[in-house]
Amino acid sequence: MRILILGGDGYLGWPTAMRFSNRGHDVHVVDNYLRRRAHQEAGTDSLTPIAAGLPERVAAWRDVSGLEIGFTEGDLVDWEVTEALFREFRPDAVVHYGEMPSAPYSMKDREHAVFTQQNNVINTLNVLFAIKRYAPECHLVKLGTMGEYGTPNIDIEEGYIEIHHKGRSDTLPFPKLPGSFYHLSKVHDSHNIHFACRIWGVRATDLNQGVVYGIQTEETQLDDRLLTRFDYDDVFGTALNRFCLQAVIGHPLTVYGTGGQTRGYLNIVDTLQCIELAVANPAAAGEMRVYNQFTEEFSVLQLAELVRAAGAEVGMDVTIAPIENPRVELEEHYYQPAHTKLLDLGLKPTLLSETLIESVFATIERFRDRAITDHILPRDRWRAAADIAAG
Amino acid sequence: MRILILGGDGYLGWPTAMRFSNRGHDVHVVDNYLRRRAHQEAGTDSLTPIAAGLPERVAAWRDVSGLEIGFTEGDLVDWEVTEALFREFRPDAVVHYGEMPSAPYSMKDREHAVFTQQNNVINTLNVLFAIKRYAPECHLVKLGTMGEYGTPNIDIEEGYIEIHHKGRSDTLPFPKLPGSFYHLSKVHDSHNIHFACRIWGVRATDLNQGVVYGIQTEETQLDDRLLTRFDYDDVFGTALNRFCLQAVIGHPLTVYGTGGQTRGYLNIVDTLQCIELAVANPAAAGEMRVYNQFTEEFSVLQLAELVRAAGAEVGMDVTIAPIENPRVELEEHYYQPAHTKLLDLGLKPTLLSETLIESVFATIERFRDRAITDHILPRDRWRAAADIAAG
Repeated sequence: MRILILGGDGYLGWPTAMRFSNRGHDVHVVDNYLRRRAHQEAGTDSLTPIAAGLPERVAAWRDVSGLEIGFTEGDLVDWEVTEALFREFRPDAVVHYGEMPSAPYSMKDREHAVFTQQNNVINTLNVLFAIKRYAPECHLVKLGTMGEYGTPNIDIEEGYIEIHHKGRSDTLPFPKLPGSFYHLSKVHDSHNIHFACRIWGVRATDLNQGVVYGIQTEETQLDDRLLTRFDYDDVFGTALNRFCLQAVIGHPLTVYGTGGQTRGYLNIVDTLQCIELAVANPAAAGEMRVYNQFTEEFSVLQLAELVRAAGAEVGMDVTIAPIENPRVELEEHYYQPAHTKLLDLGLKPTLLSETLIESVFATIERFRDRAITDHILPRDRWRAAADIAAG
Repeated sequence: MRILILGGDGYLGWPTAMRFSNRGHDVHVVDNYLRRRAHQEAGTDSLTPIAAGLPERVAAWRDVSGLEIGFTEGDLVDWEVTEALFREFRPDAVVHYGEMPSAPYSMKDREHAVFTQQNNVINTLNVLFAIKRYAPECHLVKLGTMGEYGTPNIDIEEGYIEIHHKGRSDTLPFPKLPGSFYHLSKVHDSHNIHFACRIWGVRATDLNQGVVYGIQTEETQLDDRLLTRFDYDDVFGTALNRFCLQAVIGHPLTVYGTGGQTRGYLNIVDTLQCIELAVANPAAAGEMRVYNQFTEEFSVLQLAELVRAAGAEVGMDVTIAPIENPRVELEEHYYQPAHTKLLDLGLKPTLLSETLIESVFATIERFRDRAITDHILPRDRWRAAADIAAG
């Protein structure tokens, strides 16, 4: 298959590209290096030393595997870039990671909120129009987020809910309560994609992904030049990865508030499994399938306790230090999201264990000298985001 | 009260500004003349000869009423414009009509779709950040559309629905099935505004308005220089206004498809009543109220029959000529939307009658020589919108 990976320089995009290449597919990646630039501006960086850019990455991959990955350095918000990509590559499947992926980034101030929504919504509109025009049979596999749902007081279903109301019923999009301007951008995308499926017959799978953790995949382990990025800072880092880094460098684990916030989590190797399953089983013409993509649920405090216990096993003295929650979110809430559809397709979960955490520790340990510790604590409070909005 | 009208040069914005001014409020309007420019580009125009711009409109209003309306010619997507407006005027209420309001416009091609979403979503984000920073107590009255809901197979409630699911229940945003990139932009706005209410305590009323018809209000009738615009072309015209114009000029009434599409309608004088009621009864801090703003439901064919009957009363020979539906929409569907909340606040509906249609005929008759008849039929088919997307 001809597979186009949008955001192919990212934490998940690059490992996904290597996976499909390794399986014999014709892979092309595109990225505008937004994440690298945001890190430079903030004075933060990936813990793992990643190759300098896509040319270096695909060269290293060619070296190690003998396989070719095509690449484009460009911005999908620029229609000329998107159009050329689809016109020339004519993909059978598009895996769309190509968005600004950070809630704290989107909550910094007005400019970051506007940039996030403009970037994510417009590039996805461009992708939809490019599919319609140049690859109408292609299957769009779009990364959404479990954060689109928020924490309603009913069970969360996979994208749609059958509502019985005043003697009638219909299956409708599941109502969304997103918790940041970033999460809102993904809700906007979901509505736009659903419309393109309904009106033009586009095939799409929207993967509402949980929080991903882990560093290594089958392919990244082959050579250090193939490593993917590992973020642990307050803007791009996520809870478990940050806790593992904190444990290794002797920083207290920074639990936000009571730590009762419960979310879905999955290992990076399961992200790759899910993407492979979605691509191998395309949506029908006109269908927008929605899968909730995670394997386990944890509260933030449970994660911290798991990291502390794993640390104790290998002789680390890990402490937990709750800090004031910079976000506006419920710290105690009902959470029961369905996640059976990917299991039905054949997903074999790689569950979190102390052994797995210890293997993450080991990789972090190799690069611990690269840790930048002054941006681990949150810098922005969401309630006050507008007060720094003047821009 | 200090009342800011966004989109104050528009069909509804200008009459709203005069109404609040007439009632003794301190009114400021802003507009970027987007609609006037779109008409110029398309070779279409308002049937009514409207004053040349905001300076001429407020001068005429001063002349006729002795009252002052402030104005700004500028684009709310430009943060400097939005910021200056809120910093200097510090409104108690904002009535937000300031968006690209046409579904067919948004469906022309990729560029129009992208422009519509970018314009509407970003200017509303700017307004939310400006409220938070400069007027946190102010009440945002935002014009949404009944088209956000689409035509689900259950009763449509006013913004929220109590869902009972697997033994639990919650009141959640009503699921949306918008039918164009324009309607989608309003759904995106609704989600963004709801978030600003939840996280920052903004007060908002989202008015999901039906299709507005009519030409004259209390204030526009005072002097021809105060007339509001009247659009009947394929892009900015709406069903009933277009049918009335067609009847007067002897053009067959262009019913799209079977004409079974049912929508909510209201008279322009009721739009003003609803806006006054919403402003007089502000939402609580942190609340996003949603009202469905219409007074009656008609199918497109029913409207055409009403216009034919009213025409017959005054000796016109009106014919109905169904044409292929350029839109992608159900022509036969369930439609039962609630609309009691504005009635509860005191709305006294001005229902459609043959007499009312005849008075619209009379105003059209005065300006019939201005009718441009070559853009009454639809130019764009929605299914094919992407095929002209190259831009």
